[in-house]
Amino acid sequence: MYTAIGYAAQSSTAPLAPMTFQRRGLRPDDVAIDILYCGVCHSDIHQARNEWGIAVYPLMPGHEIVGRVTAVGEKAGKYQVGDLVGVGCMVDSCRHCEACRQDLEQYCLEGPTQTYASPDRIDGSNTLGGYSSSIVVSEHFVLRIPQGMDLPSAAPILCAGITTYSPLKHHGVGPGHKVGVLGMGGLGHMGIKFAKALGAEVTLFTRSPAKAEEARRQGADHVIVSTDEAQMREAAGRFDFLLDTIPVQHDLNPYLETLKFDGVHILVGLIEPVDPPVHAANLVLKRRVLAGSLIGGIAETQEVLDFCAEHGISCDIEMLDIRHINEAFERMIKGDVKYRFVIDMATLKA
Amino acid sequence: MYTAIGYAAQSSTAPLAPMTFQRRGLRPDDVAIDILYCGVCHSDIHQARNEWGIAVYPLMPGHEIVGRVTAVGEKAGKYQVGDLVGVGCMVDSCRHCEACRQDLEQYCLEGPTQTYASPDRIDGSNTLGGYSSSIVVSEHFVLRIPQGMDLPSAAPILCAGITTYSPLKHHGVGPGHKVGVLGMGGLGHMGIKFAKALGAEVTLFTRSPAKAEEARRQGADHVIVSTDEAQMREAAGRFDFLLDTIPVQHDLNPYLETLKFDGVHILVGLIEPVDPPVHAANLVLKRRVLAGSLIGGIAETQEVLDFCAEHGISCDIEMLDIRHINEAFERMIKGDVKYRFVIDMATLKA
Repeated sequence: MYTAIGYAAQSSTAPLAPMTFQRRGLRPDDVAIDILYCGVCHSDIHQARNEWGIAVYPLMPGHEIVGRVTAVGEKAGKYQVGDLVGVGCMVDSCRHCEACRQDLEQYCLEGPTQTYASPDRIDGSNTLGGYSSSIVVSEHFVLRIPQGMDLPSAAPILCAGITTYSPLKHHGVGPGHKVGVLGMGGLGHMGIKFAKALGAEVTLFTRSPAKAEEARRQGADHVIVSTDEAQMREAAGRFDFLLDTIPVQHDLNPYLETLKFDGVHILVGLIEPVDPPVHAANLVLKRRVLAGSLIGGIAETQEVLDFCAEHGISCDIEMLDIRHINEAFERMIKGDVKYRFVIDMATLKA
Repeated sequence: MYTAIGYAAQSSTAPLAPMTFQRRGLRPDDVAIDILYCGVCHSDIHQARNEWGIAVYPLMPGHEIVGRVTAVGEKAGKYQVGDLVGVGCMVDSCRHCEACRQDLEQYCLEGPTQTYASPDRIDGSNTLGGYSSSIVVSEHFVLRIPQGMDLPSAAPILCAGITTYSPLKHHGVGPGHKVGVLGMGGLGHMGIKFAKALGAEVTLFTRSPAKAEEARRQGADHVIVSTDEAQMREAAGRFDFLLDTIPVQHDLNPYLETLKFDGVHILVGLIEPVDPPVHAANLVLKRRVLAGSLIGGIAETQEVLDFCAEHGISCDIEMLDIRHINEAFERMIKGDVKYRFVIDMATLKA
């Protein structure tokens, strides 16, 4: 057992507060990790406050984890003590179903084990996430951080990065394609970078004309102000793909109309439900597709880390002292972060 | 010019009634066709009554046309006088856009010319459909009826057939796939036949337990009563594809839940809008896709006719005397036809 310290919510209405707890002793295929940095994802807020109704307390968030291996189990051969590694949204899955066999553990037919607030498959204990000093995870669910990568800005690649990279790859985005990215938050700004690095012509759709310059800095070729009807009309039928990262309910129809025939509108957010409702004509008359996508499998998460290292892509972050985590949540709700808070875990011991 | 007779609506509230009119003289690439049979599609009713708000009167419906070539234009070389041919939902398109170049004239960027109630691309005249004694059409939009095919039951393949065949082919349905067909009307019963002929395991979803035996006669391996919650629960996560032919608004969510991860729900009906709204989680959490599809291109319409001839597939029809067309519309609205009315055009001269 490892004594650890972290920040957790004790109930849906309690702020996050320090908590001392035990990490399990090493199983044969485990690695123990000292956490250096952890990204702060909007789902951390949803879960801490039980906004999805599936929270388990104490709830210790954090699934964008970067750290250093401190011990390895007797049958764990993938990593050595001292290696820089990452842990994303999942720490286990059934490992034998149709999805797992295809390296799509996120779609595990028995349900993947989430990095936090999920029952451990072996002892049933409630998983506790990366807002903490250490974590113990099966090596299969541990990623290698490529050499030379900036560690804090690598952390969000484990969720915000893979969430946007995976659908672009799955749908074959590449040179010659026109890709629209909807929204420029933590996910959207990564989507712009990936679509551009994959060779596509990239347009940001935003409600805010003020974001145009910043979007171009992120790599967007064009900006369309989605509230400007003339701009939207002119965009009709132009796009091959839309990567929709807007985290709140919105009308998909004006965006669907910007797709060519056979165009694909990719949803990564749980906007529940899709209301205003979609017009079937916007799909049927042009053979368009409305597709969903959830994070990515472990192999593809390693792929996106390597892709980022190769292409010099990282997440734009603001470093956070963990003692300010509750204020950070409030700022995130107001959209006041560019583009991801990353906790410097050294502040846990301050 | 060819003098012709047909049944047309003179306004949205008028019943169909006989009308004498002129078909154009042959353009160089035209063929003239004596119509033998014409299927009756539900969209004929929508258009005759201007339920889509785009009708042009006089409105002469009919886009499931089978007939015999009586004359060919000077540059038309595809057909000879006496050939048995078909005309479907389109009689022209721009022929040079990205969609047309891919044999996807139904998605023509300038809009295809519909077989009826659409302006002719050359003289601007209002197209008049197949509820008539003859039609003149560019040979590019004329299909060959394979030898030995039963003519009246071939007619609905030109709309109901291609509408269900095209998405199954586009999405790669084949052996090893589990396909659910939603609804068993004119489209649904063809969908069952095609999915089965393509090698899939086929399940009909229906509200009516009484349809089970008939569904099996059509080729379905299984039947699920969609109003039976236990049956729907047991079907969760089992299907690769759903072909949704239900012509009225319905909740897609219980069906989406029957799809595997990466499953595809294909809409072919203009259920406007998709309400109750779709839950994003039903797409995102399993990378499922909601796809639309509209009829099929000319090359693929020939393909489905040939496929039907090869596999002995035809539409189940009820022959109709054109003098009963208005009663037939009423019966269709009540769902009282198995599965398609086909007008015997000989009755036009009776």
